[in-house]
Amino acid sequence: MKPWEANIRKVVPYVPGDQPKGSHLVKLNTNENPYPPTPGVSAALKEMDYDLFRKYPDPASSVLVDALSEYYKVDRDEIFVGVGSDDVIAMAFMTFFNSDKPVLFPDISYSFYPVWAELFGVPYEKPALDENFKIVKEEYYRENGGIIFPNPNAPTGLYMPLSEVEDIVSHNQDSVVIVDEAYIDFGGTSALKLTRKYENLLVVQTFSKSRSMAGMRIGYAIGNPALIRALNDVKYSYNSYTMNMPSQILGAKAVEDRAYFQDTVEKIIHTREQAKLRLHELGFTFPESMANFIFASHETARAKDIYEALRQNSIFVRYFNQPRIDNYLRITIGTDEEMEALYCFLKEYL
Amino acid sequence: MKPWEANIRKVVPYVPGDQPKGSHLVKLNTNENPYPPTPGVSAALKEMDYDLFRKYPDPASSVLVDALSEYYKVDRDEIFVGVGSDDVIAMAFMTFFNSDKPVLFPDISYSFYPVWAELFGVPYEKPALDENFKIVKEEYYRENGGIIFPNPNAPTGLYMPLSEVEDIVSHNQDSVVIVDEAYIDFGGTSALKLTRKYENLLVVQTFSKSRSMAGMRIGYAIGNPALIRALNDVKYSYNSYTMNMPSQILGAKAVEDRAYFQDTVEKIIHTREQAKLRLHELGFTFPESMANFIFASHETARAKDIYEALRQNSIFVRYFNQPRIDNYLRITIGTDEEMEALYCFLKEYL
Repeated sequence: MKPWEANIRKVVPYVPGDQPKGSHLVKLNTNENPYPPTPGVSAALKEMDYDLFRKYPDPASSVLVDALSEYYKVDRDEIFVGVGSDDVIAMAFMTFFNSDKPVLFPDISYSFYPVWAELFGVPYEKPALDENFKIVKEEYYRENGGIIFPNPNAPTGLYMPLSEVEDIVSHNQDSVVIVDEAYIDFGGTSALKLTRKYENLLVVQTFSKSRSMAGMRIGYAIGNPALIRALNDVKYSYNSYTMNMPSQILGAKAVEDRAYFQDTVEKIIHTREQAKLRLHELGFTFPESMANFIFASHETARAKDIYEALRQNSIFVRYFNQPRIDNYLRITIGTDEEMEALYCFLKEYL
Repeated sequence: MKPWEANIRKVVPYVPGDQPKGSHLVKLNTNENPYPPTPGVSAALKEMDYDLFRKYPDPASSVLVDALSEYYKVDRDEIFVGVGSDDVIAMAFMTFFNSDKPVLFPDISYSFYPVWAELFGVPYEKPALDENFKIVKEEYYRENGGIIFPNPNAPTGLYMPLSEVEDIVSHNQDSVVIVDEAYIDFGGTSALKLTRKYENLLVVQTFSKSRSMAGMRIGYAIGNPALIRALNDVKYSYNSYTMNMPSQILGAKAVEDRAYFQDTVEKIIHTREQAKLRLHELGFTFPESMANFIFASHETARAKDIYEALRQNSIFVRYFNQPRIDNYLRITIGTDEEMEALYCFLKEYL
């Protein structure tokens, strides 16, 4: 090893997920939305003036913050935006979790939480989900340096009623509590309305799922102005310009068309409810999903075998080779046609 | 202070720069390119399929890496891309500067270097520029945990000949040496050609200046595959998706049209050389700039007064209220028309 190599940061190498290419495949592995963004996004893209690109983007992303403020009926100073909810949550770890006490998040949850904790030197504990994959709220009634959990949880899809979310927040008013609502629009009730009641509550959402904009990298957090100011102070202290101009402009457009958004979400919910019936008929069981995916286990066939068989037939779902969940498949809800292709193959295979 | 507030990270609050709005102003304060991106960018923007946005972007930014590989005649595994060179350099600090020895960078230089060093807990020393603002290469012949400097330097505009850059690199083969070439295309010779000779050399460039794409947030680093692999390992370990789809697609287009790029750069160089004559006639002195800005001091008038007078007349330049440079203005090279407006006002004012 050369001397300069000795100073390289040690990290766990990343194993990229399947990013299959081609037109005849059914891609149900990354929880993307099967429908395009709103027509307003298409129109704004066509009208976009490329000459603007020569200038730095607005560091405050004002046009996007304005649109979110209008949509959610919150003030501008209650909104923080970032380059995807990954950026927003990483920034929140960095900003709020500077304590010697452990941050708490579920043992089965979003895989980046422990990564960010380690990156920023934050101690953490992972209270276990119960045997039905439910978050046990009482596990979060202990001393901590902060709390984060997704609702609905990933990769289980299980939704926690707002009253239980509030129980966790109200028991932890000395810590910042973050509810990661990447999948909330698919039938859940957001904790947004609680942010004015609890000044330590931060709600994070994303444009990547319900708003069909994963490719644009847009996430946001809503909370009381003291939290938002702290996030912006940390962000601006080391990088002034992160969200590019197209994301700001097209992101703003994406939240304007409520009817299209509602319609798309309803189609996905409808397809998901159908999927529950069809997968059940095929011998699958799963926690009750309120997300745009179903986390399913088969009564006889091994998840890994099904995953590989599907893969060989150009149908991609997600498989996690991890304790407790290594016999489950996470199946994204696609179009009705894509789901038919899945059922059709499974019927043959099983 | 509430308990949750006690855990908020302490940072130096950011003071946003002037982002003046309006059509009748002359904006010479952020080193943006006065000319639009290449026509290929305009065409690709018009053809862009908004339906693609629903999918996650390629985490490897392959289309952009391919275009850079073709342009610079280096291999794909010698290229790292990030969300602006700020993202690339912050990632490089995080990846390469894990040492107890101090990282070295000039006392007058890019203001984010000490910020990133503090963010990642990296010790640093700032060797002083000489009385003519030159980097003294011998100051970098001492024990260190890494070296970074811009060439040309900012905000001075001074260029260090490649032979001196090589002297610094060859004296420091036990550290990673980063040359930040944000302004190299305006007349300097890049250290790119040295990256195959010195495996510890990383060259960072950006689309924000010479390529007229500040609004898209694209930066890149070129170096030997071991350095690039380390950067990618660190990046992927905590965030898979950072550069959005439009930046990947339009960034690739931006590097294809060499003739337009060359033409734009030459126009800016020509305007800069004119500016040197005109500013000199007006009583200004300045280090010899090889960038798209001039760092000028007036023989009688105070920089701060000139800055404020210009501002009141909708002409924006940059003023740094810092030791050693508080009697200088950093004036971005705009179009000939914009520069005429500047000279015209200054002639009246002085």
